[in-house]
Amino acid sequence: MLNTSRFLSDLHHLRSYGAQGKGVIRPAYSAPDIAARDWLAGRMAEAGLAVRFDAMGNLFGLAAGPSLLLGSHSDTQPTGGWLDGALGVIAAIEVARASREVGGPAISVVSFQDEEGRFGGTTGSAVWSGLLPLAEADVVMDTDGVVLAEARRALGNRVGSDVDPAQFTGFIELHIEQGPALDTAGEQIGVVTDIVGYRELMVTLSGQQNHAGTTPMALRRDAFQGLSAFNVRLNDRLRNVVTPQSVWTIGHVAVTPNASSIVPGLVRFSMQWRDCDGDRLARIQAVIEATLAEVASEMGLGLDIGPLLGLEPVAMDPVLRARLQSAAEVVAPGRWRQMPSGALHDATNVARLMPVAMLFVPSIGGISHAFEEDTAEADLVAGLRVLGRAAGVQP
Amino acid sequence: MLNTSRFLSDLHHLRSYGAQGKGVIRPAYSAPDIAARDWLAGRMAEAGLAVRFDAMGNLFGLAAGPSLLLGSHSDTQPTGGWLDGALGVIAAIEVARASREVGGPAISVVSFQDEEGRFGGTTGSAVWSGLLPLAEADVVMDTDGVVLAEARRALGNRVGSDVDPAQFTGFIELHIEQGPALDTAGEQIGVVTDIVGYRELMVTLSGQQNHAGTTPMALRRDAFQGLSAFNVRLNDRLRNVVTPQSVWTIGHVAVTPNASSIVPGLVRFSMQWRDCDGDRLARIQAVIEATLAEVASEMGLGLDIGPLLGLEPVAMDPVLRARLQSAAEVVAPGRWRQMPSGALHDATNVARLMPVAMLFVPSIGGISHAFEEDTAEADLVAGLRVLGRAAGVQP
Repeated sequence: MLNTSRFLSDLHHLRSYGAQGKGVIRPAYSAPDIAARDWLAGRMAEAGLAVRFDAMGNLFGLAAGPSLLLGSHSDTQPTGGWLDGALGVIAAIEVARASREVGGPAISVVSFQDEEGRFGGTTGSAVWSGLLPLAEADVVMDTDGVVLAEARRALGNRVGSDVDPAQFTGFIELHIEQGPALDTAGEQIGVVTDIVGYRELMVTLSGQQNHAGTTPMALRRDAFQGLSAFNVRLNDRLRNVVTPQSVWTIGHVAVTPNASSIVPGLVRFSMQWRDCDGDRLARIQAVIEATLAEVASEMGLGLDIGPLLGLEPVAMDPVLRARLQSAAEVVAPGRWRQMPSGALHDATNVARLMPVAMLFVPSIGGISHAFEEDTAEADLVAGLRVLGRAAGVQP
Repeated sequence: MLNTSRFLSDLHHLRSYGAQGKGVIRPAYSAPDIAARDWLAGRMAEAGLAVRFDAMGNLFGLAAGPSLLLGSHSDTQPTGGWLDGALGVIAAIEVARASREVGGPAISVVSFQDEEGRFGGTTGSAVWSGLLPLAEADVVMDTDGVVLAEARRALGNRVGSDVDPAQFTGFIELHIEQGPALDTAGEQIGVVTDIVGYRELMVTLSGQQNHAGTTPMALRRDAFQGLSAFNVRLNDRLRNVVTPQSVWTIGHVAVTPNASSIVPGLVRFSMQWRDCDGDRLARIQAVIEATLAEVASEMGLGLDIGPLLGLEPVAMDPVLRARLQSAAEVVAPGRWRQMPSGALHDATNVARLMPVAMLFVPSIGGISHAFEEDTAEADLVAGLRVLGRAAGVQP
């Protein structure tokens, strides 16, 4: 039987590593992260699992023989919340432990390393899945100038052999939603249909830097005006391309020289968009590029579009997803929904290796990656129960 | 008689103080600035003028009795052009010298200090005109953390008594246009009608910082979108308020947190506008504030508008201006125009004390405050001749 008080007690214990106020500071390879992984390894061992750190510091608790893999990540943002990936790891341990106690199916557990991107983003699962060669990841530098190869030394002699993904029949990740949908609707569970893909471009519009007093409006080539005109026109043009799940964001803007008395000569900005549908991502890109070219030409601005970054959308496995839906209907009848994941998760990478599925519990106020991040206890327990049922362990 | 080769030779000699490539680095109170002022003082003395530095380092060459004051400033931007204020100072010396040689009217000369704003902007003339108390200016710090009181020590024992403005019958400043109008039209002289006033506000729009993947468009309160919507609406609304001489600029933009994957929670930006007409400046302000309030309300954004900064427009004296117009028609028939000054000048402050007028010569390509700043030699000479005629010295 799932033991909810043991689950909650473990969750709060994990919070103590790197705790600060209501939040947690436990970035990948920091002392609190390594200490937390050592404690998690102990809990996995007590649950009868074989503990294994791989070279990245991904921590596995392995059941014997073929098994379903559950988990998430236990590293946090530089100023993170207490649940984020931690919830999925602790829930996985409780389900594996309970399953073993009742003679249920074989369940393995994982806490991936550096999901939060000290060295890029979903780094541990990207390396494990084969997407990113370790040698390539090793030269990535964090904001303090430390490369991954150096940070990994914090693992010391913990590192064992690689973990063969062929032993796993699938992967299920429980995570907080990190958005407002479930909380706003008063629902307890989101069964993920797809993890959205994203595309990102860095765009530079170049005009003519000039004196803001002596340059008549008609003779200006103002790069900021170009950005603003593009933005408004894009919002209008995208209306008949997007769905309510599509999002697009100009989050970074750098104006040069950025002085109140100087007509901006240059503006560099990020253009990011996300959608579940790869074709729609491409259609949005076409609208963006056409609108940029049109505005630049009309306003006499230079246009430079950087390389396209992004990840493809990933559809969840229909079998695992159906098991989550049935379980959600038992645990939270009428209080669950199907929904896409707007955020990236380790499951995106693991999908290269095996069937994957995900479920969400609500984020109060939609807040995450902040000290205030929280979820009602009843919803945490509902998430555990749905995960347990989907994994074949009766609640 | 005005001696154009002596004028050009002096102009090139002044350029040698702080010369770097085609440009000049001679900010207020720097060693090259003080050395240049010492050389200018010598040239003034040779022209029979009584030399006087005031406490700010404004350098006067004083004729006996009531006189017309001519001049500008000899300090430069941190990376400045060779003409800017230097032209007006050297032309003033040539006119004063030539007038004395031919027994013409009494002409005094000034090179104001720190027009370029190491300690604020038009600092020397602001103090001399009584707009800015010296004690208040003295605590202003430059970008290196040096206060004016400390910088002024570079004047050493040069400082004499204050210069009484009552001895001057008026002030005429020759300056490069620092804009493209004359160069574009192939004209030689601009007779200034007004120095435009300006207004400036720092505006903060605050929304909700959020995850750019998980926050649906309909639930966003994106501060950058607020800025963009305001900007486009303002441009539209101002059309029936402004004239072709009005300008408005968003030159500074700071987005928070300024990351491609985060919906901007805050944007702080400068809103500056300039016009010759004080009433129109106020009407533009009303449109700006109404549009900001409307956009903030519609988009659920917080709005904070900082204190209003600015200077009133200054109309040129009709008598001095008429003398410049007559002189321009003799020196450059059909190749001059009346025009406002979009930039601020020392004349703005001097207008508190006496009648003032200004004339412009073309800036090639409209470029100023840059090493490339230049003016055709024929136009420099035309400027000198118009100034000389307007001052009552026959060319």
